[in-house]
Amino acid sequence: MPISRNELKSVTALVKRKGRAADRLFLAEGIRLLEEAVRFDFLPQTVYYAPSMCSPRAGSLLDTMKERGISLCRIQKQQLLAMSDTKTPQGVVGLFKRPETGLGKLYRPDYRKILWCENISDPGNLGTLIRSALAFGFGLVVTSGRSADAYAPKVVRSSAGAIFGLRVARVETDKMLKFASEKELRLIATELGGEILDEKARCALGDQAIILAIGSEGDGLSPDILSKADRRVRIDHSDSVQSLNAAVAGSMIMGSLYRREG
Amino acid sequence: MPISRNELKSVTALVKRKGRAADRLFLAEGIRLLEEAVRFDFLPQTVYYAPSMCSPRAGSLLDTMKERGISLCRIQKQQLLAMSDTKTPQGVVGLFKRPETGLGKLYRPDYRKILWCENISDPGNLGTLIRSALAFGFGLVVTSGRSADAYAPKVVRSSAGAIFGLRVARVETDKMLKFASEKELRLIATELGGEILDEKARCALGDQAIILAIGSEGDGLSPDILSKADRRVRIDHSDSVQSLNAAVAGSMIMGSLYRREG
Repeated sequence: MPISRNELKSVTALVKRKGRAADRLFLAEGIRLLEEAVRFDFLPQTVYYAPSMCSPRAGSLLDTMKERGISLCRIQKQQLLAMSDTKTPQGVVGLFKRPETGLGKLYRPDYRKILWCENISDPGNLGTLIRSALAFGFGLVVTSGRSADAYAPKVVRSSAGAIFGLRVARVETDKMLKFASEKELRLIATELGGEILDEKARCALGDQAIILAIGSEGDGLSPDILSKADRRVRIDHSDSVQSLNAAVAGSMIMGSLYRREG
Repeated sequence: MPISRNELKSVTALVKRKGRAADRLFLAEGIRLLEEAVRFDFLPQTVYYAPSMCSPRAGSLLDTMKERGISLCRIQKQQLLAMSDTKTPQGVVGLFKRPETGLGKLYRPDYRKILWCENISDPGNLGTLIRSALAFGFGLVVTSGRSADAYAPKVVRSSAGAIFGLRVARVETDKMLKFASEKELRLIATELGGEILDEKARCALGDQAIILAIGSEGDGLSPDILSKADRRVRIDHSDSVQSLNAAVAGSMIMGSLYRREG
């Protein structure tokens, strides 16, 4: 069935997170991202594809989608380009239902490590943090303040598909602090003046369930979070730079806390 | 002295790295970046500024530049916007002479740690790696293959000014390999299948002078580099993701090798 003018308009608006559909739907484009979605069993509602742009690998992805019962919608190259946000579109765009973002519904007590991103407004940094979170065993990411929308095209892309493998909740700072206290989660805050996260500091954390909070590069975490933190940590580096990139610093701390299971 | 039409054209072309001037000049815009340039004593030839866009902090930066003998050129807002590559321009753009990029001229035997970026084509990743390199005591960065131009606006910006604090050489792979062997530098390659860089692996490296090579996310390092490497290392993470972001992985390895002096 060809795409209607209204449908095309509503889908392309998602690239810029415009219109009402942006509250319930999001896009992920490209072969690798859609392969990851399938791997995590996070299936799209519809896959739009422009045959003239599809490689054999895109073709076999489309076969898989069809087998999984996903509706495929053939469109023209120009229509696909309008949906695309990348320099080298690969002819396939998936339209996904936005998952639940309420903390109460997403949280499970077996999440031992939660990443809290406050005011991470750069989509590339947020996506990279989500990717590292999944890599280092954080099952839940929460965003607050001026953080980018976790389902914006550039965040989804920077996450390299990790967005399909974990849960992302949107919360207010005061609610998250209350949540941390109710669930007895230890709050670890990153701060330029914090203690260096070395082996000793890691051991002191032991196997406790934690929330790791990362703030914006310019301003760091808000005083509300810092004042409630059980520990304030940082990555040691030379004084030649004032700080590390926020996604790098956050990933390094998550990596320091990672222990392979089994 | 007002800016001539030709000068404006030639400066704005630098944003897209167009024209002959791009081989000898580059731009850095914004207060923070120019403050970092001053801190590292890497001074611009000219600073263009649009008074209507300048905050008090930009004003005091301009005062400093003037004291240091830098030529200031007042321009109109529209002219400055044409030179800008950011969403929120701050009214100041510096025009810099490109430094030497020949390895022979840049290398000094007291550089104990060199970062080698092969095919790091994403400007944000390259800039972030340069920032982490400076943070973790790497005095020299070399780029090869399809790596982005280290002095492109987005790389300069992502480096958060670190580009002014270290040296960047552009090399061919075979020359760099020859160089490593001549100078007896140990070549450490990052590879998804490498050994986990833990405390034991770090100790084995000891205090030797090293080159750390990072490849592209999609393809990793080229076989030429991998086959010549003294060690192949990786960061341990769960199997939920195939790999980490290249800048994150590289930064984490640099961070693992960092020891504060003194």
